[in-house]
Amino acid sequence: MNPGDVLTQLYATLEARKNADPQGSYIASLYAKGTDAILKKVGEEAAETIIAAKNPESAPLVYELADLWFHSLVLLAHKDLPLTALTDELARRFGQSGLAEKAARSK
Amino acid sequence: MNPGDVLTQLYATLEARKNADPQGSYIASLYAKGTDAILKKVGEEAAETIIAAKNPESAPLVYELADLWFHSLVLLAHKDLPLTALTDELARRFGQSGLAEKAARSK
Amino acid sequence: MNPGDVLTQLYATLEARKNADPQGSYIASLYAKGTDAILKKVGEEAAETIIAAKNPESAPLVYELADLWFHSLVLLAHKDLPLTALTDELARRFGQSGLAEKAARSK
Amino acid sequence: MNPGDVLTQLYATLEARKNADPQGSYIASLYAKGTDAILKKVGEEAAETIIAAKNPESAPLVYELADLWFHSLVLLAHKDLPLTALTDELARRFGQSGLAEKAARSK
Repeated sequence: MNPGDVLTQLYATLEARKNADPQGSYIASLYAKGTDAILKKVGEEAAETIIAAKNPESAPLVYELADLWFHSLVLLAHKDLPLTALTDELARRFGQSGLAEKAARSK
Repeated sequence: MNPGDVLTQLYATLEARKNADPQGSYIASLYAKGTDAILKKVGEEAAETIIAAKNPESAPLVYELADLWFHSLVLLAHKDLPLTALTDELARRFGQSGLAEKAARSK
Repeated sequence: MNPGDVLTQLYATLEARKNADPQGSYIASLYAKGTDAILKKVGEEAAETIIAAKNPESAPLVYELADLWFHSLVLLAHKDLPLTALTDELARRFGQSGLAEKAARSK
Repeated sequence: MNPGDVLTQLYATLEARKNADPQGSYIASLYAKGTDAILKKVGEEAAETIIAAKNPESAPLVYELADLWFHSLVLLAHKDLPLTALTDELARRFGQSGLAEKAARSK
């Protein structure tokens, strides 16, 4: 499956789980617990990504990055923001480049 | 642009920057500084995502999530891992669902 | 100086900086920027602590831990919470031990 | 108990747990799992501190800060670094102040 189809299908699945039973779905249980529970997962997975990236094996890094992106998408869906809000912002960013981008990014 | 094309083109851009002058490209300067500098950005952007998600406005949240994904992709490219390694892992994950997924995920 | 005197004096200094000019004091400038700016520093320093702990040298780890604790104390002072609120909670915790503690901690 | 006695006694307890049975002590079980397990806790507690600081209640913030400091001290002990390494670095820091400090800190 190409990368874009993965994101689109995964996001559609996350949206659909808003109507699922929290007892029977990990994603629905996260929505039910609310924003703080989702943010704890984002924080945990970011820490685990950093740890994995400092270790020599690449498989755990890929796994933790997928966990980080997965929970980022759960957050986006929970906030009722469309996937294209995120990808449009990413697209906007790589139109910029080099020092122009760096200047734009320094806060 | 559809979400998949964004990821594919952004990742191609990140790969191409490996040959760029660190003086003239933010991304090339991150590669030159090395893994720790990229990981600091991943950690910072995760913290900023959490903070933004607790605030009422949605635009800063989208911005911080894009920053988090952007630097995740810089990390992936820096480690010479293909984009499909990440998206295949995401695809594998949404094949699973409900309690089966939760059981598989509890460590 | 013994560890307790360090914490007490540092915290008194942080409290005193609430009346300082933000132009002339790093701490006063953090208070003036507000909670989000302090939290960004807490997140950054936690990430840098994790990175430093995965590297072989110990001096940078001590430095990052000190940065993490320093900004934790700035947060505590900014929230008008006394130092003893934090140390009393720490004291309460090491009264517990072993499996009893573990059971109490699992959420 | 004054803040310094708390730190000193807690750190002595953490050192003593190095000889404890991992089955019967949360701290000994963290040592046995190793650096990555301790770092995951540092990352988690930093994220939970940020989340708590954005919520209106102060008790959970104190609790999460205590958790963050507790696991920082477990990390310090696991790395065989004395408590005074951390407090001396903190002491060194508040000797500096104002713009001089800011200049010294900007990396």
